[in-house]
Amino acid sequence: MNHLAERYLEDLHVGDRFESGTFEVTEKGIVDFAHDFDPQPFHLDLDAAEQSVFQGLVASGWHTAAMSMKLFVTGGLRLAGGSVGLSVDELQWPRPVRPGDTLRLQTEIVEMRPSRSKPDRGIIRIRNVTTNQKGEIVQTFLASVLVRRRPTS
Amino acid sequence: MNHLAERYLEDLHVGDRFESGTFEVTEKGIVDFAHDFDPQPFHLDLDAAEQSVFQGLVASGWHTAAMSMKLFVTGGLRLAGGSVGLSVDELQWPRPVRPGDTLRLQTEIVEMRPSRSKPDRGIIRIRNVTTNQKGEIVQTFLASVLVRRRPTS
Repeated sequence: MNHLAERYLEDLHVGDRFESGTFEVTEKGIVDFAHDFDPQPFHLDLDAAEQSVFQGLVASGWHTAAMSMKLFVTGGLRLAGGSVGLSVDELQWPRPVRPGDTLRLQTEIVEMRPSRSKPDRGIIRIRNVTTNQKGEIVQTFLASVLVRRRPTS
Repeated sequence: MNHLAERYLEDLHVGDRFESGTFEVTEKGIVDFAHDFDPQPFHLDLDAAEQSVFQGLVASGWHTAAMSMKLFVTGGLRLAGGSVGLSVDELQWPRPVRPGDTLRLQTEIVEMRPSRSKPDRGIIRIRNVTTNQKGEIVQTFLASVLVRRRPTS
């Protein structure tokens, strides 16, 4: 991590946008995650998935959320002290994620405020949008994230 | 899976509650998930975690969500055709999850309605609450989940 690039509340503004790298989705990744956390036929087994409402193997929504977190933590918005999420709303998966997809995340700051109770921190509200290689949206959510204020020397 | 226990919209009622089994949280599980999806010091490294705001290793919130999904899918509410989540709101992590914790999930149906556009299905709104071995709440959220209507013969 480049500590020089770590941001405090004072470095951020509503409307700021940040881009991520990419995450390659594999059949093994989908099946391994499903085995550990979401063992349903349409996440585990190619043949069963063909017969399902998804007509093929798809990633668990929670796997998409986890892959998106990897893109967030390694992406353009590096927060001083790390990314600590407080809450998430409007988490949706408008399209399925399939083996061979390449995911990418865009983050936008939509609100920000100092903490009411703790003078050393603030809270930003971000919209995280995950897209596939066709630019189709596969996941969106709003999150409230803790951000440190720059220490006064 | 016991197909006899699979439930359709007609089998469910607002106020119905369902219990899960348990999920044992291990240090290896926390670190492996973090390595794959949330590589931050307080999820990856015992010493670095001691120095962090968490004062010890804690699970990624998305790992807690994933473990809770395992408890949901293997728990008391087995939906015909599987559990397909449409959206999640008010996802919060009021207390950290640590190595050695034992998680458990309680699900309550808080709303239900037939689909407006598709006569073969409905949507239930559930509150999922994950607790640790002390009964402390470590995660809560509301989710909208697709449920099939019982086929008319």
